[in-house]
Amino acid sequence: MGKIMLTGDRPTGRLHVGHYVGSLRRRVELQNQGGFDDMFVMIADAQALTDNADNPEKVRQNIIEVALDYLACGLDPEKVTLFIQSQIPELCELSFYYMNLVTVSRLQRNPTVKSEIKMRNFEASIPVGFFTYPISQAADITAFKATTVPVGEDQLPMLEQTKEIVRKFNSVYGDTLIEPDILLPENQACLRLPGIDGKAKMSKSLGNCIYLSEEPDEIQKKVFSMFTDPTHIKVSDPGKLEGNTVFTYLDAFCRPEYFEEFLPEYACLQELKDHYTRGGLGDMKVKRFLNNVIQAELEPIRNRRKEYQKDIPYVYEILKKGSEKAEARAAQTLSEVKAAMKINYFDDAELIQSQAERFSI
Amino acid sequence: MGKIMLTGDRPTGRLHVGHYVGSLRRRVELQNQGGFDDMFVMIADAQALTDNADNPEKVRQNIIEVALDYLACGLDPEKVTLFIQSQIPELCELSFYYMNLVTVSRLQRNPTVKSEIKMRNFEASIPVGFFTYPISQAADITAFKATTVPVGEDQLPMLEQTKEIVRKFNSVYGDTLIEPDILLPENQACLRLPGIDGKAKMSKSLGNCIYLSEEPDEIQKKVFSMFTDPTHIKVSDPGKLEGNTVFTYLDAFCRPEYFEEFLPEYACLQELKDHYTRGGLGDMKVKRFLNNVIQAELEPIRNRRKEYQKDIPYVYEILKKGSEKAEARAAQTLSEVKAAMKINYFDDAELIQSQAERFSI
Repeated sequence: MGKIMLTGDRPTGRLHVGHYVGSLRRRVELQNQGGFDDMFVMIADAQALTDNADNPEKVRQNIIEVALDYLACGLDPEKVTLFIQSQIPELCELSFYYMNLVTVSRLQRNPTVKSEIKMRNFEASIPVGFFTYPISQAADITAFKATTVPVGEDQLPMLEQTKEIVRKFNSVYGDTLIEPDILLPENQACLRLPGIDGKAKMSKSLGNCIYLSEEPDEIQKKVFSMFTDPTHIKVSDPGKLEGNTVFTYLDAFCRPEYFEEFLPEYACLQELKDHYTRGGLGDMKVKRFLNNVIQAELEPIRNRRKEYQKDIPYVYEILKKGSEKAEARAAQTLSEVKAAMKINYFDDAELIQSQAERFSI
Repeated sequence: MGKIMLTGDRPTGRLHVGHYVGSLRRRVELQNQGGFDDMFVMIADAQALTDNADNPEKVRQNIIEVALDYLACGLDPEKVTLFIQSQIPELCELSFYYMNLVTVSRLQRNPTVKSEIKMRNFEASIPVGFFTYPISQAADITAFKATTVPVGEDQLPMLEQTKEIVRKFNSVYGDTLIEPDILLPENQACLRLPGIDGKAKMSKSLGNCIYLSEEPDEIQKKVFSMFTDPTHIKVSDPGKLEGNTVFTYLDAFCRPEYFEEFLPEYACLQELKDHYTRGGLGDMKVKRFLNNVIQAELEPIRNRRKEYQKDIPYVYEILKKGSEKAEARAAQTLSEVKAAMKINYFDDAELIQSQAERFSI
């Protein structure tokens, strides 16, 4: 029984720096540390369809965007299995049987589902597939016997639902499934990076994201327009760090070596913060520094992306091979699940024998 | 595009005369008339598990009972495809995608689901699998492109749900699925045959069923104990037909030829009824006639069952072959569904080409 990681993203748009600091960067580190026996990274198209059933083309177009962003960030298909959720039919079958182990009222109490429903203005017209997606997520996680799921704090109730399904399944049908652990981001600023306007969440419709594939001039424009401290009017004014997007981004992105490279008059981020709160440090100076930092971080990603963009059929080939490997793994789990449920009738010589004896009396 | 029938039963117990007059007898007639290009009859184990997840052994044991009852009634595996629902994984995948096309509130309004929930005392703790079974039923029906579904009147709302899913799918993704028609029983008495105690529904727990596999002495005992008209005390009293189980059963079972054979002093059922309502006809005389009728109907069924019971592995073989044929058909539909939804990415050369062009600019 090895250490197995599963994670993924919904293909509803290009990935942005929030995805990067919240999860992608960590995945690449984990991949390179080699502490996992297997790592699965899923492009969750089927999940994206639960609330985009009317617009399948959006999902379809964005699969390649997400795949390119993965590869651009340094996920290595030799070390990590990249796959597309809908290509693993076993996940639907697992979901189907797990649905018998969860009550409707339990789903209604799930805080993640509640807040997502609110966010999408679904109210009374929630698609059933969206309502039941915590169960489908349990199928994704357990199909690969994942021990570790690196996601944000907001996903804790989802993981709890998976654990409940695992416990219930194992208690009814015998030990079969593995309970996963959540792996939270270490850096507080990374838990949910705000949009450049300081709004809680980056969103395509708000136009407040910096995408991983963004060109340098566009990045600079966005950094320079960032929300800071609206009460910090003159350079000499003392500035606030809390809710100051520029400093939140520095918390998420800055490495010690960037000071020597781009801002040698400060030894570290704490010194810069102290100066800002004391007064006498202008927003533009900090923004120029942040721009240099983000440019340094995103340049290799953008360049790697451009390399992969030159050979799109190869990227599909990576996804196809990954999906084949993922399917083999999920099929193994499903066959164990069906054996535990004893619904593999035709392979069950004992069943056929015992029934024959029953009727021969 | 042929005429295709789909129907089935939940394997939660042996089948009884209610199943026979309500659906089984009709299926055999339809089979022998040869008006269908294909007939599929499903043992709905996966559906039975939605409210029996804690007791899979019950479902498992009853699959063979239902199969024996089918064969005993005269369903011919050469003419009808008998299969087990859980052996067709494609049904789970279809359900999964149909769930995106139905809202939670629509399911909550389904009268069949409402009354079944009440019947099972589920209230707040309805398993999600049970709650969503109208969607799973739509998958069963559409997977085989069924044009005709012979079920009871109580299933009308379920069929309506299937039709809605078909219309929604076809409007979003293009014409793919077939809208089915319901085929109701012709005989009013057959719509819902009451238990021998006159209770609305036959149920194992009430002990008020006559099973198809019942032995002659047991059948007689049950017929003789049947509920009649409690105000019909003396033979000379006028009797009521309404709510009189013996006459309901005669309506369901009697054929004109049985009068000549067992009760030649009456020309037809109407004459017998007239005598009863007028007064002067005792319950026992009618019960003896009904016993003869039911014995004549069930004897060939019981004998055929005993023949099949001698070779249980052969019965499993029939189900296995049927399941293979059913799976091939469902796989064909699923592949059309996925093509319509355009989620067959790796087979979609046009997609890969267009994406490559998009990034080559």
